[in-house]
Amino acid sequence: MSTFVLVHGSWHTGASWTAVIARLESKGHTAFAPTLAGHGKGVDKAISHAQCVQSLVDFIVGKNLTGFVLVGHSFAGTVIAKAAEIFPERIRRLVFWNAFVPLDGNCLDDETPPHYRELFKNLVKASSDNTALIPFPIWREAFINDGDLELACSTYEQLSPEPYRMFTDKLDLKRFYSLEIPKSYINCTEDNALPQGEWGWHPRMSSRLGLYRLVQMPGSHETLFTNPIGLADKIIEAGRD
Amino acid sequence: MSTFVLVHGSWHTGASWTAVIARLESKGHTAFAPTLAGHGKGVDKAISHAQCVQSLVDFIVGKNLTGFVLVGHSFAGTVIAKAAEIFPERIRRLVFWNAFVPLDGNCLDDETPPHYRELFKNLVKASSDNTALIPFPIWREAFINDGDLELACSTYEQLSPEPYRMFTDKLDLKRFYSLEIPKSYINCTEDNALPQGEWGWHPRMSSRLGLYRLVQMPGSHETLFTNPIGLADKIIEAGRD
Amino acid sequence: MSTFVLVHGSWHTGASWTAVIARLESKGHTAFAPTLAGHGKGVDKAISHAQCVQSLVDFIVGKNLTGFVLVGHSFAGTVIAKAAEIFPERIRRLVFWNAFVPLDGNCLDDETPPHYRELFKNLVKASSDNTALIPFPIWREAFINDGDLELACSTYEQLSPEPYRMFTDKLDLKRFYSLEIPKSYINCTEDNALPQGEWGWHPRMSSRLGLYRLVQMPGSHETLFTNPIGLADKIIEAGRD
Repeated sequence: MSTFVLVHGSWHTGASWTAVIARLESKGHTAFAPTLAGHGKGVDKAISHAQCVQSLVDFIVGKNLTGFVLVGHSFAGTVIAKAAEIFPERIRRLVFWNAFVPLDGNCLDDETPPHYRELFKNLVKASSDNTALIPFPIWREAFINDGDLELACSTYEQLSPEPYRMFTDKLDLKRFYSLEIPKSYINCTEDNALPQGEWGWHPRMSSRLGLYRLVQMPGSHETLFTNPIGLADKIIEAGRD
Repeated sequence: MSTFVLVHGSWHTGASWTAVIARLESKGHTAFAPTLAGHGKGVDKAISHAQCVQSLVDFIVGKNLTGFVLVGHSFAGTVIAKAAEIFPERIRRLVFWNAFVPLDGNCLDDETPPHYRELFKNLVKASSDNTALIPFPIWREAFINDGDLELACSTYEQLSPEPYRMFTDKLDLKRFYSLEIPKSYINCTEDNALPQGEWGWHPRMSSRLGLYRLVQMPGSHETLFTNPIGLADKIIEAGRD
Repeated sequence: MSTFVLVHGSWHTGASWTAVIARLESKGHTAFAPTLAGHGKGVDKAISHAQCVQSLVDFIVGKNLTGFVLVGHSFAGTVIAKAAEIFPERIRRLVFWNAFVPLDGNCLDDETPPHYRELFKNLVKASSDNTALIPFPIWREAFINDGDLELACSTYEQLSPEPYRMFTDKLDLKRFYSLEIPKSYINCTEDNALPQGEWGWHPRMSSRLGLYRLVQMPGSHETLFTNPIGLADKIIEAGRD
């Protein structure tokens, strides 16, 4: 049986993983899903990427977790990559689930298509606290395309604005790219959050991992909501030795 | 419950959708599948692309349909795009199923690989009425690759030659590209009618829609024959709000 | 009912097909899986590509097989292409299963990504008999990614080193590219043995076949071990008329 630490993406919190954790636990595994600093409703949004990573590190050290599988979704690819630099010896395997694997020196924004960059810049300008929330039409069509409208609405209500520094802080990833931790990439085949093709998740992001285990499943960027059981089973497959 | 208008591709007629309609109706939906001008056996083939579009418009206006989902297969991507320019307010959503989404000013021929262009040009030359019928070996291997030989033969017998102007009339699509109608793209993952890769359907055609809902399913270009129930269910998923 | 001749890839032998053959036979088909010259444990490894092809030709002529479907996996794409040049009239259809389809004049090595080329060159240098065995970490992560660790280990024990000339002998394929034998390509969608993307199997290799039947299924490069029943069913689909 394995221990999983599940790290949510932009706009989400640890609570987004609830149904996934239920399945992992029903299969005898242990799972944690901390909420990263700067994420969730009513919290301080003046957070840097480094502070966000530190909040994950503090959670893991605080629980004295070792030998776990560290899973990052979407934006959290950048977070687990940085956390892996800090305590590689604690991690049994890194699992990137439709997650960013930024090139060394890049920020997340550098890895997104120009129309997204422009959109988020404008949303941040219009905000009072340097944050941006994904607009509902994009959420509905490009993120949770395999869910029905009711689920798209109820999950959207759980989201909260993302601190812009998560997208714009440049990331030194030299040590990450030298680590020999085993790595997996889960690709949901209908994930169009990064538009498939030139700017898509796979193989653009996945191939940067070097030798990695590819795991795929049908579904959108939000299968943690639309198919949490199927996703949990693929996390198990991606995380085993 | 939704109303669907299903628009067939080259060589097909409205009758090609029979089994899909049966499934849609069994789920409580309403569906229409008109045969476009210039299509079918024993009809006038001296038809322009604009006349073909007009025949669809006439059908919809004649039935006074509004608030429907307009689905176009293959060649019919060009037809629903032009129809949408004429009465955008009638359409709830456009669904492109392995369909052409031509760049403004292009004809369908401009969007197909050179070996197809050459093939159809030669077939048209050899015809007496400026038409071309897809040769059986291509139908069997690249269009209905997931069907057995018996189904490949029986469906081929239903096909009829395509007026060449469907492929060569240049299309002004400026208005289409300014419309804000919601859009979906259904991609059958074994569709090799446009050869996968550089000239493939997805993401080459789909990405031109801008923000769109991606829906995928296993199957060939002819899943309306090989898996009409599965296709109908994906049309419902693609067409819902 | 059909007759299948199944040709294994590098490091494998005919015995790798055992579970696939059982399924084919249970469906009423006949199947053969010869072991190519230079392959298997304790055999002469000083074998050229031409000798390897000749061993397949001898097997087929020896059994006086005609009208069969010739299936090649991985490296064996190069073997069935050369065998097809020798007796095209005996073959009903060629099925390439995640197999190399080299450009005329190339060797297999020319078709693999630089990091593989470098790796195998170094392994061969370190060998006493001009052979290379795929390292276990690559086998586990990139070849049999959908299997569990126990299956990855037990199947790895069956492998044996590959004569380097299989990778480096240049192949004249002019006749192959002129043959009009029907062709299919089976692509397992999680096959990452050739890393997906720029250097991937499909559509890079498959598209070289010209008109071909595309068949896909979930699974890794080693579905003959991880899902032999599913693979056999797809071989039947790929091999039928």
